[in-house]
Amino acid sequence: MATIKQPADPEADPRVKAVFDDIRATRKTEFINNLWRFLAFDPALLESTWSDVKKVMATPSHLDPLTKEMIYIAVSVANACSYCVHSHTAAARARGMTAAQHAELLAIVSLAAKTNHLATGLQLPLDAVFDVEASS
Amino acid sequence: MATIKQPADPEADPRVKAVFDDIRATRKTEFINNLWRFLAFDPALLESTWSDVKKVMATPSHLDPLTKEMIYIAVSVANACSYCVHSHTAAARARGMTAAQHAELLAIVSLAAKTNHLATGLQLPLDAVFDVEASS
Amino acid sequence: MATIKQPADPEADPRVKAVFDDIRATRKTEFINNLWRFLAFDPALLESTWSDVKKVMATPSHLDPLTKEMIYIAVSVANACSYCVHSHTAAARARGMTAAQHAELLAIVSLAAKTNHLATGLQLPLDAVFDVEASS
Amino acid sequence: MATIKQPADPEADPRVKAVFDDIRATRKTEFINNLWRFLAFDPALLESTWSDVKKVMATPSHLDPLTKEMIYIAVSVANACSYCVHSHTAAARARGMTAAQHAELLAIVSLAAKTNHLATGLQLPLDAVFDVEASS
Amino acid sequence: MATIKQPADPEADPRVKAVFDDIRATRKTEFINNLWRFLAFDPALLESTWSDVKKVMATPSHLDPLTKEMIYIAVSVANACSYCVHSHTAAARARGMTAAQHAELLAIVSLAAKTNHLATGLQLPLDAVFDVEASS
Amino acid sequence: MATIKQPADPEADPRVKAVFDDIRATRKTEFINNLWRFLAFDPALLESTWSDVKKVMATPSHLDPLTKEMIYIAVSVANACSYCVHSHTAAARARGMTAAQHAELLAIVSLAAKTNHLATGLQLPLDAVFDVEASS
Repeated sequence: MATIKQPADPEADPRVKAVFDDIRATRKTEFINNLWRFLAFDPALLESTWSDVKKVMATPSHLDPLTKEMIYIAVSVANACSYCVHSHTAAARARGMTAAQHAELLAIVSLAAKTNHLATGLQLPLDAVFDVEASS
Repeated sequence: MATIKQPADPEADPRVKAVFDDIRATRKTEFINNLWRFLAFDPALLESTWSDVKKVMATPSHLDPLTKEMIYIAVSVANACSYCVHSHTAAARARGMTAAQHAELLAIVSLAAKTNHLATGLQLPLDAVFDVEASS
Repeated sequence: MATIKQPADPEADPRVKAVFDDIRATRKTEFINNLWRFLAFDPALLESTWSDVKKVMATPSHLDPLTKEMIYIAVSVANACSYCVHSHTAAARARGMTAAQHAELLAIVSLAAKTNHLATGLQLPLDAVFDVEASS
Repeated sequence: MATIKQPADPEADPRVKAVFDDIRATRKTEFINNLWRFLAFDPALLESTWSDVKKVMATPSHLDPLTKEMIYIAVSVANACSYCVHSHTAAARARGMTAAQHAELLAIVSLAAKTNHLATGLQLPLDAVFDVEASS
Repeated sequence: MATIKQPADPEADPRVKAVFDDIRATRKTEFINNLWRFLAFDPALLESTWSDVKKVMATPSHLDPLTKEMIYIAVSVANACSYCVHSHTAAARARGMTAAQHAELLAIVSLAAKTNHLATGLQLPLDAVFDVEASS
Repeated sequence: MATIKQPADPEADPRVKAVFDDIRATRKTEFINNLWRFLAFDPALLESTWSDVKKVMATPSHLDPLTKEMIYIAVSVANACSYCVHSHTAAARARGMTAAQHAELLAIVSLAAKTNHLATGLQLPLDAVFDVEASS
């Protein structure tokens, strides 16, 4: 159950249609997932969100597409976003994530959470070597 | 300022010394960072934590070492662990992370946080295609 | 599915009835939402929680009722509380929140999350001008 | 201590200079805070972040500037971003936030956190009235 | 709906069977909950996770079993992990947690969240007496 | 560095003095920590916060004082509240927490974080036995 009504005929709005068309062209699929279908309730928010996602996630860059999706999953798990964990696990799998890589991703994410909580519980002081200004 | 006193002479305890020796051998450096120096206050906790970190982060696996460190940073940022962000950014840099890759990592992490909050604010329903049991 | 059984006849307990009566009188509605129906399992916890909510959210103050609900939603999203996002989005709407204001709230919340993660990833030092003791 | 070196002469890069000039013109002040000074290490990330902040926070909209800053603070507190709590508390004060409004903001944020944790601990089921699709 | 398919016949794998047998023997019950049934998709992750849980939660130690479960619930609530809140509330109840203790646990957890957000909103400086190195 | 100026002579306000007197009498010490010294900037917020803390943490109840402090630490770690981790670790130690108990607390907190992230990453379905309405 969402907090807003899903827009009934979102592509009747030409700004929404333009974004949906770009999603379909960029992703080479007819499928538009719910994030975009619901964001259509506010075309400006839809446009700026898609613009960000396209630029960061769907443009060739210094990191390969699968690595990018795994980083996205890691953040989504830590932020406890159920929808995002699902949508980006699907995206990572579409980019070739194997079961073994998925298991390893979860092992790293959960280990990081473990040492995050240890370090915060101990309130560890920073090591001097972490000072990037000093290291020259 | 930490919540416990840093153990004064941790390697006087043979269990601590064994872990520190393994850290030095595994990482090929004399440097032992504060996480381990403080965890030495409880040898059992030190041993189990290092055992986990060694197995997940310092053993050849399905993901390359730099990818693993970037995933670790992503979780540490989302969990707001200052010490861990510092220590794993240093580790990623030691594994070759460039400034451009670091910037891209931060762009992905912050974008994920943005859509995590959007999806949670909208309480988006899951798309049927995310159902892995149905897709056969 | 909740972690406790919903109390079957909560108002049989006069302490619960007194709180429910005050909720109805304060909110001018017969409707009592699940937070209160479940908290009735412990009258002391019910009383102290309602007392807080009434004082902070249902008493004229320095901020208008809609602003207060939007701040409440913002925290609930960041804390990933599904129930609270729903209940306070409904409350904000009852206080006049328009679709455009809702979209703007989500834009601010998600942008804040984005820069929160950037600032934590960079471990930014505080600017001297933020020092309120110095500015006199 | 930051995770990257602060760029020494950021405005030597014309893309950075253009953003800094726009920040100064938009905010009508010579002061550029550390978020932007450090983001200058990657002009593309600087540009996209400032573009977002300008559009959402520095453009007249459906919410007044002080309300927007208070919502920003609320998210930053819940995400435990020390830098952001400082910078946006300063910004809210610059937009007229009184001590009484600040106290009330903190009262709402901390109350929301309290009921967020109660609702999550109880795993409350959603009330039927929250269903926006059903309410017509 | 999970992000992976539940393994169909997990105990066909002898490593999984060994873990499941140990869970049954340790907990003195035939019941294996979903955490383990799904982790069976990666025997190594299953083994290391169960090893941790057995050592920390199912071995006599300095804290009694009920206290340990209540601490586990507290973290799970703060991390917004729905599954974990459910599973550990059930475990705490199996170790004798009364409704009054449960209510008190929730009162402490939600109060802690409240003052956590207050302290973060105020960015309180540490008191000198918290310095364990100084107190000798 | 805090976000507000520390009130210079807080006990000049009789409402603040009454709270401080009660803190001293309840805790049997002259020491007033910074949480209260800063909350004095708003006597109403000070009163309601102390009232909550006194009732939940400083009144004999179903849980012993040390258990209560350890639960408080657990939440504070998960919420990444540096000040609260320090103040409640000090409080737990004052109530007799040994180094071994502290290590065990951290082991439980960090293990919970680990399985919280695993369960969220897997999006585990709830087991039917967790349904308290069904178990009669």
